[in-house]
Amino acid sequence: MATYACRSREEIRTEFKKQIARYEELKHENLNLDMSRGKPSKLQLDAVSDILTILTNADECLLDGNDTRNYGDLSGLPCAREYWADVLGCKPEETFVGGNSSLALMHDVIARAYTHGLKDSPRPWCKEERIKFLCPSPGYDRHFRITESFGFELITVPMTPDGPDMDIVEELVQDPDVKGIWCVPKFSNPQGYSYSSETVHRFARLKPEAPDFVIMWDNAYCVHEFDGTFEPFEDIISLCAEAGRSNMAYEFASTSKITFPGAGISVMASSKENIDYMTKLISIQCISYDKLNQLRHVRYLKDKEHTLEIMRRHAQIMAPKFEMCLKILRREVTDKGIAHWHHPKGGYFICVAAMPCTAKRTLELCQQAGVKLTEAGATYPYGVDPHDSMIRIAPSYPPIEELEKAMNVFCTCLKLAALEKYMGKTLEQVIGE
Amino acid sequence: MATYACRSREEIRTEFKKQIARYEELKHENLNLDMSRGKPSKLQLDAVSDILTILTNADECLLDGNDTRNYGDLSGLPCAREYWADVLGCKPEETFVGGNSSLALMHDVIARAYTHGLKDSPRPWCKEERIKFLCPSPGYDRHFRITESFGFELITVPMTPDGPDMDIVEELVQDPDVKGIWCVPKFSNPQGYSYSSETVHRFARLKPEAPDFVIMWDNAYCVHEFDGTFEPFEDIISLCAEAGRSNMAYEFASTSKITFPGAGISVMASSKENIDYMTKLISIQCISYDKLNQLRHVRYLKDKEHTLEIMRRHAQIMAPKFEMCLKILRREVTDKGIAHWHHPKGGYFICVAAMPCTAKRTLELCQQAGVKLTEAGATYPYGVDPHDSMIRIAPSYPPIEELEKAMNVFCTCLKLAALEKYMGKTLEQVIGE
Repeated sequence: MATYACRSREEIRTEFKKQIARYEELKHENLNLDMSRGKPSKLQLDAVSDILTILTNADECLLDGNDTRNYGDLSGLPCAREYWADVLGCKPEETFVGGNSSLALMHDVIARAYTHGLKDSPRPWCKEERIKFLCPSPGYDRHFRITESFGFELITVPMTPDGPDMDIVEELVQDPDVKGIWCVPKFSNPQGYSYSSETVHRFARLKPEAPDFVIMWDNAYCVHEFDGTFEPFEDIISLCAEAGRSNMAYEFASTSKITFPGAGISVMASSKENIDYMTKLISIQCISYDKLNQLRHVRYLKDKEHTLEIMRRHAQIMAPKFEMCLKILRREVTDKGIAHWHHPKGGYFICVAAMPCTAKRTLELCQQAGVKLTEAGATYPYGVDPHDSMIRIAPSYPPIEELEKAMNVFCTCLKLAALEKYMGKTLEQVIGE
Repeated sequence: MATYACRSREEIRTEFKKQIARYEELKHENLNLDMSRGKPSKLQLDAVSDILTILTNADECLLDGNDTRNYGDLSGLPCAREYWADVLGCKPEETFVGGNSSLALMHDVIARAYTHGLKDSPRPWCKEERIKFLCPSPGYDRHFRITESFGFELITVPMTPDGPDMDIVEELVQDPDVKGIWCVPKFSNPQGYSYSSETVHRFARLKPEAPDFVIMWDNAYCVHEFDGTFEPFEDIISLCAEAGRSNMAYEFASTSKITFPGAGISVMASSKENIDYMTKLISIQCISYDKLNQLRHVRYLKDKEHTLEIMRRHAQIMAPKFEMCLKILRREVTDKGIAHWHHPKGGYFICVAAMPCTAKRTLELCQQAGVKLTEAGATYPYGVDPHDSMIRIAPSYPPIEELEKAMNVFCTCLKLAALEKYMGKTLEQVIGE
């Protein structure tokens, strides 16, 4: 079949009626399905629940004469710092192992920049007249919301399959008000792009005007392949040091999608100077993080190699779900010319670029049929997608049977929203005719 | 024997030489003892390590159809909020259950007041010209350091056995720059005083000029009796509401000294309006706290009644240590008239008020004999005790045999520092004679 754009008005009307009939059918199923957030499924959590028995008596809590049950080791258990250094490819002294939330570590870096300033800040950011922050988009809504919450001006930077458009980034950082950028370098949220080696190196070689410009390098999906073998990534910390700006990057990761989302451990990595600086500020906030949980994780995950083995358990559950989504998208949408998407090999999302001005409407129709997706616009600063086009699908949480239903609903709604544009009439108007 | 003050110069010299000899003896033991921080001992941690086996399989993590291993319930598991409401005497919706650190919850309330303002703030505190904060002293160094870190002016308020001097507090809060006060209402750190009912009610009835004045009510030792039965305390949240200023108090507590210091759970309690306001701000920072650990704690501690039972295990270990310290203090120091102290029935400290101008010197002498105590001055704003008198002893961590040695060193040093004052000569000068 030809794309919608090439069809006659009569053919469009026929197709519209067909899709309406299909939509009515799906609505009658009274679905209640959620593809809105990147949550692991119960099966995935069950697959790693043997971590619950890894630490069950007092003796196991002692480590090199240290009692992990007691206060101490604010920057993390030495073995936990070694673990993360192994995973991220940096040095243990360049890591700070935190609690269950890497988002909290990111938030607190920005909060401290605001209240106290970063290592190389001339003054706390709250004393600056204006702060601008770069947001490669589509991106992660929670990143953008942190910098929005502190009143920074968010500047959209276009994403490419190789990462943020570096020509634009290099130009924007000439502005001294531009203080940082959010990055998800591997399996980016939501498109699933991994930054090219050139992009990573251009980041490390950035020469921003602001001396305290910060690269917020959220390596959330660093070992999260579900299709194919592990794709190595470069160590941004040492690359920045080599380029002469060692304090420019803060990297983040967690086990939220390796073990348990609410009960994992997190890490912040940066130059030793930055880690020392931050540790001093964090010592005002906290005596120590949950070292028992750090120990539990190190004993369970062991090292990068073994972590990758555990990630294959997740991949076995995730891969069929992504395949199912992509298969239905291909079958239902490809030949219509109304959307395109990247086929990710890891991460948690598929990002569908719908026909401009149809994303919100698609989601509205989905909602009416009992299928919840991430709010349209959420992947852009201030929640506004200028083209009303990007839709984030999170296939991980629902069981595969439900996912299939949800994707059928989604594709039907995507088509309906496009058909409304081509017809210049709403669904309701056509039904009323 | 008469107090030092009543002795003749010759008697003082004789006593000095006797104490010097004792000190030299003790120094030869090459001790390395730590009474500096309120850390539970290994015995205490062992006594509650059965919590490690309370949650060992996947099914146990499911709760009313909710999977505690996954994201969600930012303000805490409902059962954890009920648990804390039971312990603190407030309502579940007035609680927010956090991670392992109540200090972090306190820090973040102050940080958010600074960056965003509290519920009733006319503007964020970083936009105020000056912020003053009341610090009942001696008090907890980590409290004072938080408010110091944000550049507030710390104002010392004298402590009495009934709590902070409320006449002074009531006067100081007339100043609109005075934005809050730190409190440890039960078994105060370091003196072990519990606020009288009158003090608590005067706090609730405070009418500060600043509309966003905040009472930071750190109920750290709310169930921490080691001597005698549980002493009930009043609910500051409802008292403030009754007095017409429901948003004035934030209460804090944790299981750091009930289960494990690094791996417990914490709570913040306040008006529902405050909790809703804070939860919204916290949702920018964190997706959810470690609910597995919350569940682990609720299953283990059950309720207030059972928690008090578990606290009796701690009491059995703590009581003999405090008795030992107080016995040695009585035996060595009482009749010398050079120090006084309160006999606490709970909490983690004994606070010795030494002869003015001798605290630092006492600790210096202790250090030279291998005994570490909390830094002199630490219990005052900016780390400066105006009388150089207060010394905090933390008897919980060392085994009792070590504690006995450490207390003998401490008492000897306390006497030496006083004798130096009475002689007008240092230890070294007398040895050199």
